[in-house]
Amino acid sequence: MARLHFEDFEPGSVLWTEPRTVTAEEIIAFASEWDPQPMHVDPVAAAKSYYGGLIASGWHTCAITMRMMCEGWILNAASAGSPGVDEVKWKGPLRAGDTIRLRRDVLDARPSQSRPQIGLVHMTCRVFNQRDEEILEMRSTGMFYRKVVA
Amino acid sequence: MARLHFEDFEPGSVLWTEPRTVTAEEIIAFASEWDPQPMHVDPVAAAKSYYGGLIASGWHTCAITMRMMCEGWILNAASAGSPGVDEVKWKGPLRAGDTIRLRRDVLDARPSQSRPQIGLVHMTCRVFNQRDEEILEMRSTGMFYRKVVA
Repeated sequence: MARLHFEDFEPGSVLWTEPRTVTAEEIIAFASEWDPQPMHVDPVAAAKSYYGGLIASGWHTCAITMRMMCEGWILNAASAGSPGVDEVKWKGPLRAGDTIRLRRDVLDARPSQSRPQIGLVHMTCRVFNQRDEEILEMRSTGMFYRKVVA
Repeated sequence: MARLHFEDFEPGSVLWTEPRTVTAEEIIAFASEWDPQPMHVDPVAAAKSYYGGLIASGWHTCAITMRMMCEGWILNAASAGSPGVDEVKWKGPLRAGDTIRLRRDVLDARPSQSRPQIGLVHMTCRVFNQRDEEILEMRSTGMFYRKVVA
């Protein structure tokens, strides 16, 4: 069973995930539970809003991004979680019917000072729609176990 | 119907939301869909992990935070969405049975340069558990319509 460790995240490397299509039902279901603003749950109100139609909650976009990250590498990695996200930019709307995919760039990777068995990987994840418009940019840190502990 | 506008978000003001209790079922349901790592979906594996038990996905904590923000002010406000989040720090685990609440501090507020009918409000939202341990810190920007357009 191949598992990715800290050493497998090479600074400068680029990875694309599989595409995923988002439905109106999914947009409304997520937002009804977590972010019930009219532009996310009410297609009629959304059509009259600044956004001109139903758009996904930004947190739904983040949740989908996390799922794509899980399927792309995390579930195949010796992951130790994450201390947080440096920045999330919602750069454009995610609409019903859009097909999105994720590009990951590894920025840098360094061993943890306090926990020698893990390393910290800084990365940027960008999500693009079917017209190659960027809808999300997220800079985050992942913690992964090291193959070899110094 | 009282609705909050840009002018109602006073820099320096503090607001606390109502508490919310999180269940194991909710933690597993959210993570099964969006972040199916063992420490979020498998109580047995989670007990053996670094975290010593089931913990919520950090994105679940964000989603709950958004729901508390909606109930706390956004659904009563003339909201125009958000361009993004400056920083999310997952400062401690959110566990089944925890009761959490949110403290909002308005940092600053300024009219938009490009859209004179709205203003940008920078705020910090901090989430604390029943032992007053901070589990989330989020710095974000909300856009709200102005009561009076210059």
